[in-house]
Amino acid sequence: MKVLRTAASLRNWLAATTGKIVLVPTMGALHRGHGALITRARKLAGKDGRVIVTIFVNPTQFGPKEDLSRYPRPFAADAEMCRTLGADAIFHPTPEVIYPTGSSTTVEEHTVARGLCGASRPGHFRGVCTVVLKLFNLCRPDLAVFGLKDYQQCQVIARMVRDLHIPVRLIFAPTVREPSGLALSSRNIYLSAEERTEATALRRGLLAARTAFGKGERSAHKLRAIVAKTIAAAPLARIDYIAAVDATSLEPVVKMKPGDTIALAVFFGTTRLIDNVQMPKGGMTR
Amino acid sequence: MKVLRTAASLRNWLAATTGKIVLVPTMGALHRGHGALITRARKLAGKDGRVIVTIFVNPTQFGPKEDLSRYPRPFAADAEMCRTLGADAIFHPTPEVIYPTGSSTTVEEHTVARGLCGASRPGHFRGVCTVVLKLFNLCRPDLAVFGLKDYQQCQVIARMVRDLHIPVRLIFAPTVREPSGLALSSRNIYLSAEERTEATALRRGLLAARTAFGKGERSAHKLRAIVAKTIAAAPLARIDYIAAVDATSLEPVVKMKPGDTIALAVFFGTTRLIDNVQMPKGGMTR
Repeated sequence: MKVLRTAASLRNWLAATTGKIVLVPTMGALHRGHGALITRARKLAGKDGRVIVTIFVNPTQFGPKEDLSRYPRPFAADAEMCRTLGADAIFHPTPEVIYPTGSSTTVEEHTVARGLCGASRPGHFRGVCTVVLKLFNLCRPDLAVFGLKDYQQCQVIARMVRDLHIPVRLIFAPTVREPSGLALSSRNIYLSAEERTEATALRRGLLAARTAFGKGERSAHKLRAIVAKTIAAAPLARIDYIAAVDATSLEPVVKMKPGDTIALAVFFGTTRLIDNVQMPKGGMTR
Repeated sequence: MKVLRTAASLRNWLAATTGKIVLVPTMGALHRGHGALITRARKLAGKDGRVIVTIFVNPTQFGPKEDLSRYPRPFAADAEMCRTLGADAIFHPTPEVIYPTGSSTTVEEHTVARGLCGASRPGHFRGVCTVVLKLFNLCRPDLAVFGLKDYQQCQVIARMVRDLHIPVRLIFAPTVREPSGLALSSRNIYLSAEERTEATALRRGLLAARTAFGKGERSAHKLRAIVAKTIAAAPLARIDYIAAVDATSLEPVVKMKPGDTIALAVFFGTTRLIDNVQMPKGGMTR
């Protein structure tokens, strides 16, 4: 497995490569959720294709008061996981490689990115779109794999890819969870033992709403209240938002239909966790 | 020569193509200036490469009070010129192909695009960057040829290509002029006979400044005044701006050095003309 740190070394590696390129963009601090993405990428690439994992903590997607400086960067362990799971290369650039001096170009999606995390974190998705487009242009993948834990990110990138006619096929992979239901996240390490226990309320609340939907409840207001009530039982939790939205446009809905999504963000201290659940499509008792 | 109108037909044509792809993006209403770009592209492509000319009047780069609806669209004559000059394909999409329903993603350069035409035409370069990136993603060229008459556009695109790591080599070709010195432009057809005669003052003013620079004048203020004085002698002309700037950043300069550029925009009635001249690099008497 190659570790590439410059645009030139990446270009040379790509020039010597035949077959499909499958990209897994990450900020490092890899956990089993990322592992599932790399494994999925390995399968998609097949024997002839190549899997490239990018590890880059993108400064432009962090707000001024967010956790950029303390974001974990355990590169050796990350590289070991990539190697074990069959990645062919890691692209691990410095910020200067991605953002050359005087960088002044941004990419912005204005609709899907507007609400939810976009409302709470101004500029976040502009940073995401800009860096993802740069990584696409640098790595020129045929496919790129993202995790559905970052649900809005997936939909923003899907819209950007469609709008800009980017020739990359997107693959979205399911969220990986702890047995407690807590969605794996690089930010979970910030949680105290108590916060970690309480954080399981996010998944429990979302599942309670999904169950209620399965039993026939369609009111977005009532389904959101079910989530809120479960989370309110966790005294350390501070709800940022609980939103009931269309699965693709992320426009708020009043009456939920199969495929619609409830997404949320909840603070524990300064740690902000996100999760989401999709209303089941058919086969459920009304 | 193929005329392609959809993304799918373009993709199929590209898939059947080997060798370099050289792109000439235009808004149609082709004149000898565009002709020179196509001829240059033909040489760059060689025998094995392919030249694709895009003809698309991009709505997002026109302001609300600008000439989008009346912009000339003589497609048959344009196609004939492309064929004659050896283009292999024309990509001539409808706005719906480039901007699918609900398009919500933009690309913006925030520094080079700020002054000059960017100040006079808010949103213009956002429209330019967005459409050029889309055309790059659709056509996947190895090289793209632009004309230096649109000097700021060239520099904005160069910055975007660098910043976003777009794997396209840019070629900038010199302005083609009438014997009178008037830079060829699709908008010249809007000019009355009298305006057309007066419009030669743009080139005369710029050349007078260049001559003064050659004789040792370095004051941006004085060099701009020389241009302004020449244009003031044309009673129908209304100056939008005359700027003395660094050739790459387009930051205003106080003392001009070789390579710096004077760029201008001047209205004749509602017709807005642009032109520019670079201060010579070496070999000139002080």
